[in-house]
Amino acid sequence: MSEARNFHMPPEEFRKWGHSVVDWIADYQKRIETFPVLSRSNPGELRKRLPSKAPEHGEPFKSILEDIDRLILPGITHWQSPNFFAYFPANTSGPSILGELLSAGLGVQGMLWATSPACTELETHVLDWMADMVGLPDNFKSAGPGGGVIQDSASSAVLCALLAAREGATGFQTNEHGCDGKLVAYTSVHAHSSVEKAVKVAGLGRRQLRLIEADSAYAMRPDLLANQVQADRAAGLHPFFVSATLGTTSSSAFDPLPEISQVCRRENLWLHVDGAMFGPAAVCPEFRHLQRGVEAADSYAFNPHKWMFTNFDCDCFYVADRAVLIKTLSVLPEYLRNQATESGAVIDYRDWHIPLGRRFRALKLWFVIRHYGLEGLRYHIRRHVELAQVFARWVEESRDFEMTAPAPLNLVCFAHKAGNEFNRRLLERINQGGQMYITHCVLGGRYCLRFCVGQTHTEAEHVRRGWELIQQTAASLNRP
Amino acid sequence: MSEARNFHMPPEEFRKWGHSVVDWIADYQKRIETFPVLSRSNPGELRKRLPSKAPEHGEPFKSILEDIDRLILPGITHWQSPNFFAYFPANTSGPSILGELLSAGLGVQGMLWATSPACTELETHVLDWMADMVGLPDNFKSAGPGGGVIQDSASSAVLCALLAAREGATGFQTNEHGCDGKLVAYTSVHAHSSVEKAVKVAGLGRRQLRLIEADSAYAMRPDLLANQVQADRAAGLHPFFVSATLGTTSSSAFDPLPEISQVCRRENLWLHVDGAMFGPAAVCPEFRHLQRGVEAADSYAFNPHKWMFTNFDCDCFYVADRAVLIKTLSVLPEYLRNQATESGAVIDYRDWHIPLGRRFRALKLWFVIRHYGLEGLRYHIRRHVELAQVFARWVEESRDFEMTAPAPLNLVCFAHKAGNEFNRRLLERINQGGQMYITHCVLGGRYCLRFCVGQTHTEAEHVRRGWELIQQTAASLNRP
Repeated sequence: MSEARNFHMPPEEFRKWGHSVVDWIADYQKRIETFPVLSRSNPGELRKRLPSKAPEHGEPFKSILEDIDRLILPGITHWQSPNFFAYFPANTSGPSILGELLSAGLGVQGMLWATSPACTELETHVLDWMADMVGLPDNFKSAGPGGGVIQDSASSAVLCALLAAREGATGFQTNEHGCDGKLVAYTSVHAHSSVEKAVKVAGLGRRQLRLIEADSAYAMRPDLLANQVQADRAAGLHPFFVSATLGTTSSSAFDPLPEISQVCRRENLWLHVDGAMFGPAAVCPEFRHLQRGVEAADSYAFNPHKWMFTNFDCDCFYVADRAVLIKTLSVLPEYLRNQATESGAVIDYRDWHIPLGRRFRALKLWFVIRHYGLEGLRYHIRRHVELAQVFARWVEESRDFEMTAPAPLNLVCFAHKAGNEFNRRLLERINQGGQMYITHCVLGGRYCLRFCVGQTHTEAEHVRRGWELIQQTAASLNRP
Repeated sequence: MSEARNFHMPPEEFRKWGHSVVDWIADYQKRIETFPVLSRSNPGELRKRLPSKAPEHGEPFKSILEDIDRLILPGITHWQSPNFFAYFPANTSGPSILGELLSAGLGVQGMLWATSPACTELETHVLDWMADMVGLPDNFKSAGPGGGVIQDSASSAVLCALLAAREGATGFQTNEHGCDGKLVAYTSVHAHSSVEKAVKVAGLGRRQLRLIEADSAYAMRPDLLANQVQADRAAGLHPFFVSATLGTTSSSAFDPLPEISQVCRRENLWLHVDGAMFGPAAVCPEFRHLQRGVEAADSYAFNPHKWMFTNFDCDCFYVADRAVLIKTLSVLPEYLRNQATESGAVIDYRDWHIPLGRRFRALKLWFVIRHYGLEGLRYHIRRHVELAQVFARWVEESRDFEMTAPAPLNLVCFAHKAGNEFNRRLLERINQGGQMYITHCVLGGRYCLRFCVGQTHTEAEHVRRGWELIQQTAASLNRP
């Protein structure tokens, strides 16, 4: 059967349509500010417009592409718009998109070193680079007992950390016999929901997770942590794991690692550090003081897919002792045995996370680091922090708004003085307008607006227009 | 600062380099058979050639691209070569690569419906399509109590199934209080290693997983399953979960679902069905008899990223009762609250798997289905099965080789009659030659060669040349 009639897309067709999709993306980048940032789609709106059955016969690629504009774009919330200040960013960049494209084109599996040595070695190498780039200690690098791996998300990273800690604390007996009901984990009341999720997944039970109260800056109180550990020990329980956060999701609070790590060392607890959002900032030496104490961590995770121009998914996860992690997650069936693995000379990343298969994700990170250089990455991180600090100053100087948490980096939590209900309406009105997108959090019972500067193309003018829009919208709303 | 000096890749540069990367991939597709299928790289070879530090200054994209040929290609095992017959395939296609590209270009997060409604709705819709395409019962579709979601892998899918089953069996008390040491899970001795991994991750302990012996065709014996469940109950334990396989990794054995599901129903056990490799074959009505009984499953997973021209990661995971899964995995912090979620009218896929963030993976699946149509997908699945069956006939007719397991679809397990050591050397010699890549398994103590036909572009000539190469290589080896 000729190539033209066998349903596949031949290389020359791929070339043609590939150029079209690249063009579509380049054009999208240029016109992205013409769309409402938050999608105005209603529940079910897209589904109503899709045929109820898959097509029996193939369709021209041209029609498929046309449907992106017609059907998909109205249902997109534009995370790559420079007017996106919501959640934490998930920023990306040209070189990253092209790295992802190349990874898809190569289509290799990196589950074992042998299934594509370059996929494993580039990942190990780039994660060693990253350790140096953000000032991590050498014990997180592959030449020592530790090492790094790309996970899909910080949620998966904290789960793997928790599992390794669980096995380390029980001499790998939990893997063998199951949880014993005595293990206790600790994190801050302001930690990310993924810690609770991990504790439940790992079979510990939510009640075995202690949420330690925070200080007035929303950072975990190490004295209360120490007390709780003591109390749990006294009750015959087995404290084993602490997850501390560098830059909480609500307000970018920094848990005090030096004090927390002292407790961990004294009490023999695994210290996991979640720097999902903050991590990339440490490419700038002037922000490294915020991660002081990370050298005592047993594991550390941060997300280039949030704030380092690398598209999701790309979480960098480091462990100080890779042997524990590998022993925790390894299952070696016969069909995966191979000489390279048996030699012990290689890393098989399948033993470093939950899935078996894995994409060649290091490519996009490599592309980003080489395209920007450290210089370029620092430039943009600094720029975002600077813009957020300008925004914070405007809030501080305003009559109607006030800061509701410290803003050490690029996230500003603030509120209108007219109370929770007013702020709720304000947020809704702003987002409905489509010119920008911000989200909220609750701090000490107070409904706060979050303004996070981290989208790749956000410039001073976007932040200025954002602040003006917030003020104007507030002025147009009836006070309670 | 001007666009040209701010380190980013401007849209017009992205267009230019995007075209180059697309061209590189199109050319790679054309010349893929010129590379040794299995990489000849030695451990550390790539790392030695990479600079030890990340660059301070950005590099031209041209140099980055040149390094793909110079540094990366020698370390690639060519999963997309038509001479790749190893493991299970991870095949892909032009439309899928372009779907992944577009997903990276849009760069949206699908964690909540609200964070990009199209990302969630297209996924729900395409997974409903898929349910019909492969003949799954209506209760797996979103209009009823069930529904589908894209997971990264069948490993993650079986973990989520196990967790939902765990909570369903304990009234959500395990999430609250931790494992009680009584829960017991069951699978076949030939099941994928991901079941054991999931049991350990979920805190049950490996000893709480019963590996049920198989019949002579390597399929789980339902009578032994029933006996074991009875014995465990008698011992005061709590049987709750069975994972059955449609197409095992070693030999594509099919566990007898009708009998297994009877045991599950009688004993009130969650039945998970792992159809990772086989699943896509059910687009052809003539292969659906192999999944008879799947309508009784509580969850089902299969991988378009194996055998449906959709690049990794794309595992379709279905549950008959989504409420249990969602309640198991849901944690709703304030910063994720939004009107759409509170209305109950939408799906928030973050509660359907381990990570919080998620890519727009439905795009590539939508592209593949629309490009090929059901007709095209059926054509290629049938073609692969036909080619594998021809290969199996050659094995059967040969003097030196014999089949070592039934070959119901596209995987042929066979061995040279000269014994294990000979087959081991034969495999090594074949793979070293670079003309094709096959892997092995062990069945009943016998070292077997696995020949799996599933790469997108494998045609009759590749299979024929493969068989010739196997025969010639065997003839050239010294008999023991």
